[in-house]
Amino acid sequence: MSDSYANQVMQRCDALAACTEEPGRITRRFATPAMAQANALVAEWMRAAGMTVRQDAIGNLIGRYEAAQPDAKTLLLGSHLDSVIDAGRYDGPLGVLVALAAVARLHDQGRRLPYAIELVAFADEEGVRYHTTYLGSSVFAGTFDPATLDRRDDAGISLGDAIRAFGGDPARLHEARRRADDLLGYCEVHIEQGPVLEGLGLPVGVVTAIAAQSRVAVRFAGMAGHAGTVPMELRQDALCAAAEFVLAAEAQARSWPGLVATVGQISAQPGASNVIPGLVVLSLDVRHQQDSECAEACRRLREPAEQIAAARRVELGWQVAQESRATACAPALAARLGQAIQALGYPLHQLPSGAGHDGAALAALTPFAMLFVRCKGGISHNPAESVEAADVAVAIEVLNRFLELTARETAS
Amino acid sequence: MSDSYANQVMQRCDALAACTEEPGRITRRFATPAMAQANALVAEWMRAAGMTVRQDAIGNLIGRYEAAQPDAKTLLLGSHLDSVIDAGRYDGPLGVLVALAAVARLHDQGRRLPYAIELVAFADEEGVRYHTTYLGSSVFAGTFDPATLDRRDDAGISLGDAIRAFGGDPARLHEARRRADDLLGYCEVHIEQGPVLEGLGLPVGVVTAIAAQSRVAVRFAGMAGHAGTVPMELRQDALCAAAEFVLAAEAQARSWPGLVATVGQISAQPGASNVIPGLVVLSLDVRHQQDSECAEACRRLREPAEQIAAARRVELGWQVAQESRATACAPALAARLGQAIQALGYPLHQLPSGAGHDGAALAALTPFAMLFVRCKGGISHNPAESVEAADVAVAIEVLNRFLELTARETAS
Repeated sequence: MSDSYANQVMQRCDALAACTEEPGRITRRFATPAMAQANALVAEWMRAAGMTVRQDAIGNLIGRYEAAQPDAKTLLLGSHLDSVIDAGRYDGPLGVLVALAAVARLHDQGRRLPYAIELVAFADEEGVRYHTTYLGSSVFAGTFDPATLDRRDDAGISLGDAIRAFGGDPARLHEARRRADDLLGYCEVHIEQGPVLEGLGLPVGVVTAIAAQSRVAVRFAGMAGHAGTVPMELRQDALCAAAEFVLAAEAQARSWPGLVATVGQISAQPGASNVIPGLVVLSLDVRHQQDSECAEACRRLREPAEQIAAARRVELGWQVAQESRATACAPALAARLGQAIQALGYPLHQLPSGAGHDGAALAALTPFAMLFVRCKGGISHNPAESVEAADVAVAIEVLNRFLELTARETAS
Repeated sequence: MSDSYANQVMQRCDALAACTEEPGRITRRFATPAMAQANALVAEWMRAAGMTVRQDAIGNLIGRYEAAQPDAKTLLLGSHLDSVIDAGRYDGPLGVLVALAAVARLHDQGRRLPYAIELVAFADEEGVRYHTTYLGSSVFAGTFDPATLDRRDDAGISLGDAIRAFGGDPARLHEARRRADDLLGYCEVHIEQGPVLEGLGLPVGVVTAIAAQSRVAVRFAGMAGHAGTVPMELRQDALCAAAEFVLAAEAQARSWPGLVATVGQISAQPGASNVIPGLVVLSLDVRHQQDSECAEACRRLREPAEQIAAARRVELGWQVAQESRATACAPALAARLGQAIQALGYPLHQLPSGAGHDGAALAALTPFAMLFVRCKGGISHNPAESVEAADVAVAIEVLNRFLELTARETAS
């Protein structure tokens, strides 16, 4: 049974939570002493599970569990060890440690598979320190942009210097690129960061795709005025226009299967209680697992925005700030995860990932699949992030089954 | 004709605009050197118009134009000389200078009326420096609260020290209280600060009352979550709740004669483009010229707020931050202003004042009336504040007719 492994994973998540830049809360940004401490712990656990360990030029920690025979192919497992500021303890580390538990189980059983396993603990997925995501996985996948090396963190330290200080080598990042020719794929375990599995009462689910995302900066420019002296019918209230748009975006997403639309930021100027807002700026975040649907939804949301602006005699600004394409999971790998889940007697639920993950970068290198683990209330990026040991046990079990099924596929 | 007087008023508004704490923009707070400079200019103009001039213990500048006979009653005219930060040049000074022009006209004609006129240039109406309005008029009316003397401005200077530095005496403020027994009333000319007269194509209008005002701090507490991973139907989006409320407040005010409701401030937490807002705080400002209507409108607005909160499973916070009662203008004085307007061939339009004015403080002392002057676009508290010289000429003419009508009433 995987219970003892699951308990160990929970304890190890706690141990990694103690590797932090800020006493009292979890903050573990790329290439910090806290990250070095986390890498050191995980490296020790990897060795104990029979793996050889190395750290690449950007700081990814890679443990390799050899195959039963030489010249075998390699399956990649992994997730990331960096965190956001004031983070929870499971976003990233859980995936590394569940994979580590699955390998440890093989090791404890004295088993080798017909393929090698490389477990990668990526050095940067959240992108907090240099305001760019996937530093670790993009180097690993060979898609890293060297221009990024000139970026500086809030303390003025360049990415190049941070890599050097972490024991890496910015000049050799291209050598850290993983060759693709021996790869079988990449499989990542991660907390869902949403409430779907909890709502369904399921411990795990299989990801279909990492969603496409569009971010739009929306601006309504009306006319500021005295809150006491301008009659209602003469107003050009930018906040009333924005309020209509917020509800239009919500209504569209509610009626569009698989779409989510969020206004997360809003600011009203001049921002005094006795002044009618003359200008409102808000952020619109739209996601769907299909590129075409995401783009179409954005286009369709511009229509009510224009109608609202025209009807209220305010000006509309609409600036697309970001458009990320969807990354589909490999159907064969996803089906194998599903098979593993069903073999354990759980219903299979497939769901898109609205959040980005290292798999989005790894997709440029090799087919990828993702297993989501239920988390309490769907809460993440928050100290209240919580998972159940029983669900972790299921995830380990599913991953071990997945490894076995992959062994059969590889042998046949 | 009043055209030359009107042109002089326009020039004097420009001259007062140059009395500022901040070069390049108009900022003239209570008891500053800029205010002293303004008082000195106005005192000189008062003397030139045949008035005796004194400055009271809080810094109000008072010019007295004697009656034709001793032991006559006194009519008060006035407005304020302080300004907001980055102000326009007419809010306050126009009223002082129109009244000054009306007196100068009498003086130039060698006329005395059967009552004296005291023209008061109040030292603080906006309340910018000590975050409390009507410092000047409340001392004059005898309603000043001595506890206010301990307040400090942003530089740490107490109100008491500021009064002393301005040549006043905080210990003798009670002596600055105007006796009421000889007063006929108070009449103030002021820019409308709204777009009603402009919309009607009228140069002036008569104020019915200074509106009652309620300010409520409204709070919607939902559940923050990841913008990509929480499906629409599982969200408790505080901003969507707030948006519904903003529109409910607008709709209610639109359908309620004389009511204005404004959400001027809004903040969404945590305020990231990729996070569903968990908390929204907004300001609600409700005004009506009748106390009962204002209070009833606030009560009725709480109903949709509660319905929205319940339907969306968010928590509602509703905290009344301020409730100011309406101040009605004296019907007899207002009727006399209307008579003066109609005698000049203009239609009479009566309108409430959504903004507060010195009259609200003076009402504790004597009956008051207000004449509004059209201003461009209804814009005020802004350098773009603008009035036409032709409208100023009408205002002077109306005020002179008002003085004549008052003379007839006093004589009869």
